Amino acid sequence: MKATILIHCPDQAGIIFAVTRFIHSKGGNIIYLDQHVDQQANIFFMRLESNFERDDISISDFKNEFNTSLAERYLMKWSFYKDESRPRMAIFVSKYNHCLYDLLSRYHSGELLVRIPFIISNHLDLQPIAEQFGIPFHHIPITKNTKSEAENQQLSLLREHEVDFVVLARYMQIVTEKVIDLYQNKIINIHHSFLPAFAGAKPYHAAFSRGVKIIGATSHYVTQELDAGPIIEQDVTAVSHAHSIKDFIAKGRDLEKIVLSRAVKLHVQHKVMVYNNKTVIFS
Amino acid sequence: MKATILIHCPDQAGIIFAVTRFIHSKGGNIIYLDQHVDQQANIFFMRLESNFERDDISISDFKNEFNTSLAERYLMKWSFYKDESRPRMAIFVSKYNHCLYDLLSRYHSGELLVRIPFIISNHLDLQPIAEQFGIPFHHIPITKNTKSEAENQQLSLLREHEVDFVVLARYMQIVTEKVIDLYQNKIINIHHSFLPAFAGAKPYHAAFSRGVKIIGATSHYVTQELDAGPIIEQDVTAVSHAHSIKDFIAKGRDLEKIVLSRAVKLHVQHKVMVYNNKTVIFS
Amino acid sequence: MKATILIHCPDQAGIIFAVTRFIHSKGGNIIYLDQHVDQQANIFFMRLESNFERDDISISDFKNEFNTSLAERYLMKWSFYKDESRPRMAIFVSKYNHCLYDLLSRYHSGELLVRIPFIISNHLDLQPIAEQFGIPFHHIPITKNTKSEAENQQLSLLREHEVDFVVLARYMQIVTEKVIDLYQNKIINIHHSFLPAFAGAKPYHAAFSRGVKIIGATSHYVTQELDAGPIIEQDVTAVSHAHSIKDFIAKGRDLEKIVLSRAVKLHVQHKVMVYNNKTVIFS
Amino acid sequence: MKATILIHCPDQAGIIFAVTRFIHSKGGNIIYLDQHVDQQANIFFMRLESNFERDDISISDFKNEFNTSLAERYLMKWSFYKDESRPRMAIFVSKYNHCLYDLLSRYHSGELLVRIPFIISNHLDLQPIAEQFGIPFHHIPITKNTKSEAENQQLSLLREHEVDFVVLARYMQIVTEKVIDLYQNKIINIHHSFLPAFAGAKPYHAAFSRGVKIIGATSHYVTQELDAGPIIEQDVTAVSHAHSIKDFIAKGRDLEKIVLSRAVKLHVQHKVMVYNNKTVIFS
Repeated sequence: MKATILIHCPDQAGIIFAVTRFIHSKGGNIIYLDQHVDQQANIFFMRLESNFERDDISISDFKNEFNTSLAERYLMKWSFYKDESRPRMAIFVSKYNHCLYDLLSRYHSGELLVRIPFIISNHLDLQPIAEQFGIPFHHIPITKNTKSEAENQQLSLLREHEVDFVVLARYMQIVTEKVIDLYQNKIINIHHSFLPAFAGAKPYHAAFSRGVKIIGATSHYVTQELDAGPIIEQDVTAVSHAHSIKDFIAKGRDLEKIVLSRAVKLHVQHKVMVYNNKTVIFS
Repeated sequence: MKATILIHCPDQAGIIFAVTRFIHSKGGNIIYLDQHVDQQANIFFMRLESNFERDDISISDFKNEFNTSLAERYLMKWSFYKDESRPRMAIFVSKYNHCLYDLLSRYHSGELLVRIPFIISNHLDLQPIAEQFGIPFHHIPITKNTKSEAENQQLSLLREHEVDFVVLARYMQIVTEKVIDLYQNKIINIHHSFLPAFAGAKPYHAAFSRGVKIIGATSHYVTQELDAGPIIEQDVTAVSHAHSIKDFIAKGRDLEKIVLSRAVKLHVQHKVMVYNNKTVIFS
Repeated sequence: MKATILIHCPDQAGIIFAVTRFIHSKGGNIIYLDQHVDQQANIFFMRLESNFERDDISISDFKNEFNTSLAERYLMKWSFYKDESRPRMAIFVSKYNHCLYDLLSRYHSGELLVRIPFIISNHLDLQPIAEQFGIPFHHIPITKNTKSEAENQQLSLLREHEVDFVVLARYMQIVTEKVIDLYQNKIINIHHSFLPAFAGAKPYHAAFSRGVKIIGATSHYVTQELDAGPIIEQDVTAVSHAHSIKDFIAKGRDLEKIVLSRAVKLHVQHKVMVYNNKTVIFS
Repeated sequence: MKATILIHCPDQAGIIFAVTRFIHSKGGNIIYLDQHVDQQANIFFMRLESNFERDDISISDFKNEFNTSLAERYLMKWSFYKDESRPRMAIFVSKYNHCLYDLLSRYHSGELLVRIPFIISNHLDLQPIAEQFGIPFHHIPITKNTKSEAENQQLSLLREHEVDFVVLARYMQIVTEKVIDLYQNKIINIHHSFLPAFAGAKPYHAAFSRGVKIIGATSHYVTQELDAGPIIEQDVTAVSHAHSIKDFIAKGRDLEKIVLSRAVKLHVQHKVMVYNNKTVIFS
């Protein structure tokens, strides 16, 4: 059995030794260990991958014992991921297709190890792409008056299909508290600017107007404050006075799809930990 | 004689032909021409370098005729730079030395073709570096009460030495209207963030707190609104959760000095045009 | 009528003026002009876009007159592209799908303004993707003994469909003289390394073995010397000791598809000029 | 007491646990641990920083016990660095000053925690800079006939001053076996290309001639094969057809000095491990 364990807790002496001793006592061999201490916040983070000799190890026993002998003592919050089970990822889109194409082609070629139970959109434009890839497509239109009802429909689908996390692939609607609260640090958005610059609507127009020489894209977990959630991944590209807003948008598309896909992969591989509205990204 | 000409004016048909015809009629051979049209603002920009057969060409005649036959007709604002005369550059610093070292070593090795009549600082820390490089150093301390008087002293020195432009090499004081108005688009600042993100004080602390994955530096002309002037040059570098604020600052130093020096070189080579609080940067 | 003109010739005084005068005399207004002189090789390059008042201008007259009054005198080689007619682009692939997906999704969403008469592959793996996008797919297997015959089949298809240029989207066969000679500077390849480092087979393995800290991808026109043709576009990404060859390959895929698509776009927009086995890329 | 320990050995189960147990048994608290396994070569690497409760711990006892109980059993090669003692760094230069200025200004401002007992050059050009910074300068000219004698002089100075490592800051002479053998993985060079492209002389000329769109700089340990030693750090910058060789050289200077300084810092902080002509770089 192979497992990945993520731990964070108040920093104190002896944690690494205590955890490695515990893993050893359970017949585990650590094949990857990385840790980080935020000195300012005094928080310890660790990610470890371990092989266990026996495949018949009881996971519930393991978890109970870990809790009793380590987690309680060190006030740890921790997660255990048994193997490479594929998480269920829902995709929300509107009208732009570049991020959707990128995610689906990676999924299709086996690069992105997830299941995609469905795509939700408030528009019909991208239905043909969903069909091209054989993914169920749910059209849930949204108006001011129907927003709450539409979110209920979204939540029904998420629950029914036991969705693990949601990717907003240029979904042009603000997701509200109702959904965010149920999927904390489980909704990944791509924002088409180098946050915190140009949060909100029309960031390429704002970047053009400000005359920046570099534009960016940012993937982050969605929180209630717009475009202010924990940043998972960012990237940038150079622009010049010679580029129009249309050029910014075209260049930005390439950034957006790459940055979003990187963030999704990190999430799927359990390499992201969130605290204080920031992320620790293990390599 | 070799000259560089910068032109901007409302866009209309025939400008390039009209200018090239004028240069030709004066015995000039264009060795570089680049132009740009801001379609939104309908402004035409051109930079050209030209060799003239005769060295005894009268520059005032040239300018008069250019004004009469072109500039007035096309509502051009234009500049003419005769040759590679070295502009006079004043440097303002406070306590950080990395940008100062970088500028002075480029100056010393002949990479930066300027004259440096003096360095002004509100602190004494960097006086030894000025002495190391043989540049006059003026210590003008600044307190709330003496700020206006200090700026008068600065302006006296700038005038006395016929300074062409000023470089704020991590100068930790806000320059006021009194100085800015006299040196519009002639004061180059380096801000230690990827503007417009993290304008104002302590940008590395703010970037760390926000959990960004990339930090930057921005060189811009100083205007009355803090850190909001026309951007000349920007660059970025990747950071991670593993970097402390101290690491951000150390990585940022390398960005700051390179970005500032690039901006200064562009300015010295007459490759920057300013309009609508933005820049056109010719290659 | 709008047209793009590309010119190169030995450098000499007066070319820019002569060309702008000619365009003016034909009722043309230059809306974009960029030029470059390779001082070492003494070659002048120019790209200009021009609007002509009249739409009924005779292109053959224009070309004849341009030849007589300019091209012959200045020994120009030049091209004239009337408007935004969509060139015919053939795609050659083997087994990797990421570049194909990227090209087809850009084509499908109207970002890439070409026609795609067919896809050729020496394998059947990617036929479903061609079908997904409704593009004819020709399976032309290649063995040592059938290579020449296979190339004849390829050439028949290229001729029959009046293909303007060919994109090798990770096509894992060496294209021979027979094809190259007929499509000089018209076959665009993507090589998965930062050329000239790691030319030839298995560049990611070679990069891993050498312990580089950055990997790259290079798009170039195909010439008879393997991976040695004129470079159109390159990009790189950081790697570390922690990345396996498999990681290099995954990171490389993102580089390859972006770099290839950028190169294809530059070619389609007539922004590439080739000389001395190098390219001039106009912005 | 604070110490940094670097370990590498054949990979096998239980190493991390064994080492953390040993550190714990000596009253050490691990404050940083990072490890890496090269799966292909089956080698395990670890870097750890540890605080020890007692300052009077006997280092020789610690080392003996570590050897007996761990190193012999696991066939470890390991290093122990007690604290932040400043290593002695010699600088070799020729005529270019940008890397020297960069190193000395970082040294002078306390960013680079080393001692610099002397600078050696085969030319006199940079003597004034050494004097500017108060560092002893030894002029050791080199001709074909005197090379061996000159190297003896160099070695005498290195020994006399107990130099820990050597930085070749654009030193334009090939260092021979005689010196390399005595300072294995202790001589850091900066090569002005993106290795392995353009090894050897005049890389900017070669890059210009090949028409690359990106140039780079590479810092590596010196081995007997020219420009083929383990790479510590690389960086790149974009170029275009519009840049001359002179522009390549100017842009390259900024890369060279930053890349070399980063490599020197990594070395000083014991973050580099070398094996199979490659490096592991801990963050």
